[in-house]
Amino acid sequence: MTHRLVAAARPEEVSQAARLLEPIEAKLAATEALLRRKVESDVPFIARAGEYVFAGGGKRMRPALLFWCSRLLGRQGDEDVTYAAVVELIHTATLIHDDIIDHADLRRGRRTIHSLWGSNLTVLVGDWLYTTAMKMALEHDDLRVIDLFCDATLRMTEGELLALERLGDIELTRDEYFGIIDRKTAALFAAACAAPALVAPVSEDAVAALSAYGRALGTCFQLIDDLLDYTAQESALGKPVLSDLREGKLTLPLLLALPRLTTAERAQVAAVLEDRAFSRVSEGEILALVQREGTLEEVSELARAQARRAGSALEHFADCEARRALEFAAEFVLHRRA
Amino acid sequence: MTHRLVAAARPEEVSQAARLLEPIEAKLAATEALLRRKVESDVPFIARAGEYVFAGGGKRMRPALLFWCSRLLGRQGDEDVTYAAVVELIHTATLIHDDIIDHADLRRGRRTIHSLWGSNLTVLVGDWLYTTAMKMALEHDDLRVIDLFCDATLRMTEGELLALERLGDIELTRDEYFGIIDRKTAALFAAACAAPALVAPVSEDAVAALSAYGRALGTCFQLIDDLLDYTAQESALGKPVLSDLREGKLTLPLLLALPRLTTAERAQVAAVLEDRAFSRVSEGEILALVQREGTLEEVSELARAQARRAGSALEHFADCEARRALEFAAEFVLHRRA
Repeated sequence: MTHRLVAAARPEEVSQAARLLEPIEAKLAATEALLRRKVESDVPFIARAGEYVFAGGGKRMRPALLFWCSRLLGRQGDEDVTYAAVVELIHTATLIHDDIIDHADLRRGRRTIHSLWGSNLTVLVGDWLYTTAMKMALEHDDLRVIDLFCDATLRMTEGELLALERLGDIELTRDEYFGIIDRKTAALFAAACAAPALVAPVSEDAVAALSAYGRALGTCFQLIDDLLDYTAQESALGKPVLSDLREGKLTLPLLLALPRLTTAERAQVAAVLEDRAFSRVSEGEILALVQREGTLEEVSELARAQARRAGSALEHFADCEARRALEFAAEFVLHRRA
Repeated sequence: MTHRLVAAARPEEVSQAARLLEPIEAKLAATEALLRRKVESDVPFIARAGEYVFAGGGKRMRPALLFWCSRLLGRQGDEDVTYAAVVELIHTATLIHDDIIDHADLRRGRRTIHSLWGSNLTVLVGDWLYTTAMKMALEHDDLRVIDLFCDATLRMTEGELLALERLGDIELTRDEYFGIIDRKTAALFAAACAAPALVAPVSEDAVAALSAYGRALGTCFQLIDDLLDYTAQESALGKPVLSDLREGKLTLPLLLALPRLTTAERAQVAAVLEDRAFSRVSEGEILALVQREGTLEEVSELARAQARRAGSALEHFADCEARRALEFAAEFVLHRRA
């Protein structure tokens, strides 16, 4: 079976990704089966939308990280499959609600359920997936794990709210940007990695180390995501480039360049944010600004620093296959092209 | 302090309602304080929207029922305040998402947060309230209570989805109607009433009896709600009469009349459902149909039967002040005028 993370990668990355996924392939397959089973419902629309959403796949990054962290701690049992499905359900519910807000028509090259069935049904499907995730998390009586997932979900919602309040605002600060991505993205990565450490017997040191690892990895992931919006080709991403800016989202490459631009150039950025379109200013003109100021390379360096920080957090653990896989995951996130 | 349930009632109902609420006034006040505290947030919009929503009040029916059930079981401690706030948070989150879907501008005579701040922020505030409810429910380590609230939330979402799929459909059956209101309304009433019985030491008989009581009361509540849409005055409800039909919602008074109407009269109903407006047919014409067929009285009788069923469920318990209050609550729901 070719995993979709492998399928999505560049040819030269395939063998590396396979190395990362092969040992946890059975767990990932069990997670897929569990997700499909959980969206079976006597409510026709839930069954239809659930089937559609999970058939579309995704990289299943968070489940993969959770399984490696579980291995690192020598956890036996199948709680990790439940929690991996919980994390993926929360992630999916968030994407579904975010797609309503962003009016996104495409996600991973497929139509969003919001564009297919309208926002009303989609609000409710998102609610159903969130609550199903919480109900599943209850299965193993680990209250701290459920609390962890509740917290991560709250942080994600808050991150999206903060982002929405600052949408189209050229005055967004670097600190605000990092505050937003920490809640929107890093919090769930941190929860996915820390969850196995919260299964009894709990080691607080392991919780802290894996949480730090996941947070740094998630931050790295988001920095690369924001970078790819400036550097990737439409075909690889399944969505148009510079789509963040077109939606009014100011991300780090342009945010770092802004203080160095002329008044006229800032006005160009403001025009795109205001129009939510490249009508008065072209994509090429904006790209030229970030290239001239070298901020794409600066963001790359910040992402590398986060990957190194993730690696350092793993030094808490003895060298083993799982630790090497998690170290490699940080490299993989850093070098991904889609 | 005049409770808002009392404030909302007709003068002749005030003294009765006061009798129902006085003994649990301290608990209700503690719930209000807890709700206000929980929506304090460093995210400006959450604090603003939360303050607005809870300042608007509401009848706090579900918390009141939960407190009387807790008393009936002789529960000590303050878990019931937490769970009452949880129930009210879930109820509020559901209303907020429903108002987006219904494009409702008014609720209890005040503007909805959707109409004030747009649906994007409102989707996220709803998500945040749902997750905050689940996180609060974790505080007392009663896994079965959390599971109960998760289930009720799932049922409510499913009920709204089913209702949405059948919106504007003149072929809706009576069984489908009851299936929808059972999930949309009765499930959370049942959970509110059964929650105190799931705090250790658990009595399964009490869980079953209070769940049956809550379900019957909730069904009665919804039947009266649907009836009031046909019989109440705009000023008392804070929203226009026949607003359900205007939104494409076929409720029991008209649903029972439909098979007895002439083809031309059915076409009138179909026209309102299709137009989502009283443009080709007037409110008066529709009202005349249900009055002629006597279905308002039939729905009243069905509501009375549910109130009796609620009373029967209480026979499991010895006579006491709490049991009499819960019996009276069923009467109160049956006879409310707003």
